[in-house]
Amino acid sequence: MRKTIVEILKKAGDNFISGESIAGELKVSRTAVWKHIQKLREDGYEILSSERNGYKLKDAPDLLLPSEIQIGLNTKIIGLEMEYKPSIDSTNQLAKKLAYHGAADGTIVVAEEQTGGKGRLDRKFFSPRGKGIWFSVILRPNLLPKDAPKCTLMAAVAVAEAMKRFNLKAEIKWPNDIMHDGRKLVGILTEMTGEIGKISYIVIGVGINVNIKRKEFPKDLRDVAASLSELTGDEISRVKLFRAVLEEFDKLYCKINKSGFDEILKLWRKYNITLGKNIRVISASDGKSFTGKAIDLNADGALIVETKSGLKAVYAGDVSIR
Amino acid sequence: MRKTIVEILKKAGDNFISGESIAGELKVSRTAVWKHIQKLREDGYEILSSERNGYKLKDAPDLLLPSEIQIGLNTKIIGLEMEYKPSIDSTNQLAKKLAYHGAADGTIVVAEEQTGGKGRLDRKFFSPRGKGIWFSVILRPNLLPKDAPKCTLMAAVAVAEAMKRFNLKAEIKWPNDIMHDGRKLVGILTEMTGEIGKISYIVIGVGINVNIKRKEFPKDLRDVAASLSELTGDEISRVKLFRAVLEEFDKLYCKINKSGFDEILKLWRKYNITLGKNIRVISASDGKSFTGKAIDLNADGALIVETKSGLKAVYAGDVSIR
Repeated sequence: MRKTIVEILKKAGDNFISGESIAGELKVSRTAVWKHIQKLREDGYEILSSERNGYKLKDAPDLLLPSEIQIGLNTKIIGLEMEYKPSIDSTNQLAKKLAYHGAADGTIVVAEEQTGGKGRLDRKFFSPRGKGIWFSVILRPNLLPKDAPKCTLMAAVAVAEAMKRFNLKAEIKWPNDIMHDGRKLVGILTEMTGEIGKISYIVIGVGINVNIKRKEFPKDLRDVAASLSELTGDEISRVKLFRAVLEEFDKLYCKINKSGFDEILKLWRKYNITLGKNIRVISASDGKSFTGKAIDLNADGALIVETKSGLKAVYAGDVSIR
Repeated sequence: MRKTIVEILKKAGDNFISGESIAGELKVSRTAVWKHIQKLREDGYEILSSERNGYKLKDAPDLLLPSEIQIGLNTKIIGLEMEYKPSIDSTNQLAKKLAYHGAADGTIVVAEEQTGGKGRLDRKFFSPRGKGIWFSVILRPNLLPKDAPKCTLMAAVAVAEAMKRFNLKAEIKWPNDIMHDGRKLVGILTEMTGEIGKISYIVIGVGINVNIKRKEFPKDLRDVAASLSELTGDEISRVKLFRAVLEEFDKLYCKINKSGFDEILKLWRKYNITLGKNIRVISASDGKSFTGKAIDLNADGALIVETKSGLKAVYAGDVSIR
């Protein structure tokens, strides 16, 4: 309902529109319209009102509200359903719960802040209020569990393609970190549930550091984390960037459902900064490390590393470029 | 507590043992002992009592009670924790819930009947009361998600090894059905949850048709399902068989944690009836079928099929031998 009111106000542009005509369009009372307007103001919308002329939208908040994100969003699957929280422990946590209870393919959970944001392997993910885009997407692709890692690569590529719309160059470190100058701009955590032969659902959590100033990062993160605003020198509209990410994600996701991962792997290779480099790998399973040269991805999205003792396929682990 | 009382009674063998000495051993009142004895009788234990001599175990029920299964069970991980239900919708369902809330590696959920037993790909699994072994095991192996299919092969091998103890020959059809004369004796459903690089938990549901007479199967199952008692011509002790399955499972599981899947794949090959045969495969992902010759397993546990258009690796699907 509130989304539709915002839509009507936006359509009216610089003109006032009467409460009566909004009420008529929505088939509710003028009092109901007034109540929704109050709620929208609480959400951060600046709405002018005059007894004679009605309402006019002066300014929309840079909040990741469904009313801001979904209106005019050009996607077929991603973001058609959206759950918004001002604050949450972890978007992946809620997304997994919604997925377990049957949430649709493409459902988004987004929050202004995460109080217990999680990265890979139970690490913390710094997610301060209003400074980034912290979201999870629920996917129900018709794929085998072994294809799930490639969905992670897809998520990284989607963010990279969205950044490109803002003239920002993305550098992907295998498997899915987006880096700037050796520091992480974007982190992705993918979780999956399924049978042996069938994915039930994948939840991909994405954290994009958008407008975090260097000094706003906790001290221990300052040398390992970065924010997109560092690249531009200016604040970036989270609403615009988030819409771009969802649209690019949707494009890629529709592609894999039709024709597989070829194009995604091609794009991943284009953005990656790992292949061809001498790297150190810390294996996720046993914590052991080894060095070698990153040669290619295999068909499963694993990193092929040339070591002294031959080729190794790395399915999960931490990679640092030497 | 009740498990300990059963243990004491069993140790006493043909002798009576006084309520007082049981109470002393357990450090509870004689009334408490009497109450537990009543409960055990409700569970199906035949316990004689005499005012002068105390209690004596006459007969234990063929129920899959922890007090029957766990006493003297020779396992290191599997079945140390056990959840027993006279009736349940699906053991996998409860096991997933327990796993989500942190249940330990090796935890077992077992029921006398399942009212909503599930097979692969949302198929129903007939699980009548007291006639089979319907259980799930929660595993937390230090493995990559891509190794999960091999845990399914392990489950099939564990049941095959247990059957061998009863002089029953197991024939495994890829990936994990145990067959008799073209009909299914044992079905296995594996479900997994994890990150890309790390399994959180695997739940393996196993349904063993033990003492189901052919006419007791629903009509539509009579030509596709069979029961172990058909092979022996006689009823089989579910308690003994279940203990054997858990012990074999434990042996194999301890092995993969130490030295990988080599021996399991070797045993699987020994029991399998698929390799070398001309087969028809219906793919799980797109429902398409094709024919070819089953050549081998690859390192991921996928079936390699030689077709007219070359080798294909089948990760999930239904196989029928032509």
